[in-house]
Amino acid sequence: MEKYTKEFIAEKIKENLKLDENVHPGFSVDCVIITFYDNKLKILLNKLFLNSKWMLPGGYVYKDEDLEHAAYRILKNRTSLKDVYLEQFYTFGAVNRTSPEENEKLYASYGVEDTDVREKHVRFISTAYFALVEYNKVVIRQKKEDECKWFDIEDIPSLYADHNQIIEKALKHIRAQLEYLPIGFEMLPEKFTITELRKIHEGILGKELDRRNFQKKMLSSELIIKLDERRDTTSYPPPILFSFNKEKIKALREGL
Amino acid sequence: MEKYTKEFIAEKIKENLKLDENVHPGFSVDCVIITFYDNKLKILLNKLFLNSKWMLPGGYVYKDEDLEHAAYRILKNRTSLKDVYLEQFYTFGAVNRTSPEENEKLYASYGVEDTDVREKHVRFISTAYFALVEYNKVVIRQKKEDECKWFDIEDIPSLYADHNQIIEKALKHIRAQLEYLPIGFEMLPEKFTITELRKIHEGILGKELDRRNFQKKMLSSELIIKLDERRDTTSYPPPILFSFNKEKIKALREGL
Repeated sequence: MEKYTKEFIAEKIKENLKLDENVHPGFSVDCVIITFYDNKLKILLNKLFLNSKWMLPGGYVYKDEDLEHAAYRILKNRTSLKDVYLEQFYTFGAVNRTSPEENEKLYASYGVEDTDVREKHVRFISTAYFALVEYNKVVIRQKKEDECKWFDIEDIPSLYADHNQIIEKALKHIRAQLEYLPIGFEMLPEKFTITELRKIHEGILGKELDRRNFQKKMLSSELIIKLDERRDTTSYPPPILFSFNKEKIKALREGL
Repeated sequence: MEKYTKEFIAEKIKENLKLDENVHPGFSVDCVIITFYDNKLKILLNKLFLNSKWMLPGGYVYKDEDLEHAAYRILKNRTSLKDVYLEQFYTFGAVNRTSPEENEKLYASYGVEDTDVREKHVRFISTAYFALVEYNKVVIRQKKEDECKWFDIEDIPSLYADHNQIIEKALKHIRAQLEYLPIGFEMLPEKFTITELRKIHEGILGKELDRRNFQKKMLSSELIIKLDERRDTTSYPPPILFSFNKEKIKALREGL
């Protein structure tokens, strides 16, 4: 990985330490971007530098920018998506959620002096959003100084700062919604199989669900519609296709 | 109201304009404190100065203080309560949620110069919490320079900044929870009548509920328990008392 020369990274770190005068001080936005692919839920993570920990895509809020706008901008910047479902779920404000020590250790490995890091360390409060996105519509924007890729939800490494907790909280929030709303339609194509929807629910709940009960419950909720169509696959019989009852879901969401 | 002399207020405003070096910049906490009294839901509001608008009790977050701690501190400071149910529900970050013009107009009426206000105006992002409290346990702390009192939920005046929206969002959030959790037990004494609980639900939903259906639904949820006791009042027959099934509610909350 030639792009990660020591000099290049040291330069990038120094740039990062200069807090942009145009951003709201001590405040950031983090995005938990979730998708469904290959029968698994996945979360988008990025890594700023060679030795740094993986983290959630995030960024600052400009002084003249609405908080929500910042979240959309960060999401679009990473995934090329617009008009996706994005929901604010919690603001993380523990004092020790980021530590100067953690950054210091990392930066030292690139020869950036301790004092620079300590002095510039600001405590950040971060508002977190989650987005449910369709895998095939995402075009990940790779930047020069970082990597960005999907991780299986069951296989998230130890992340930067409190980002593991942020993901946990997002899943908890989505789990609570699952009780009265089918989550997943943003992650699935127009027509899907009941197995695909079940896999999403299983991924969010972290447990297996009974196939028959799941289908029965979903159909009786009237939030999905059984189509008179089957998917043309090699399996026999080809699976029946379903679609979401968008109007009912919209009405439910608006009532929240 | 002798305490509101023009000089006193001008002095207080000038103090307020000096942003404390010990607080996290551009960030505040607002609390929607809700209670139930005299068959009505009420919200605690305060007013900083004689001519200012009413607002939600709020405050800053100290640099070395966890966000959640700040919310508890502000709540305790106003109501003398500790160990109450407090839940973060949303962070408000529109650029125009507070305006220098609004403050300027107010301050001008006390002879504080425009330039002071404009220059010191910082855009604030605010994380909002709601608390459900028992009326009789609250001891409102009146401060020298402001007033603080309960307002009927149906009778909230036009508030400072976006505080009306914050209340709306809190109610929307609580309404969504009502679907699967009985809200209200924090606002009621140990033993209550079904009418009292219904009045709380009606206040939150903003509509009347059918008496019989409500009782049936509540009992079948097993979240309330019918006691073998009646309240000793002048009405005949004296109403039956109920209590909450605390363990079941706790388990449900923890599952969220």
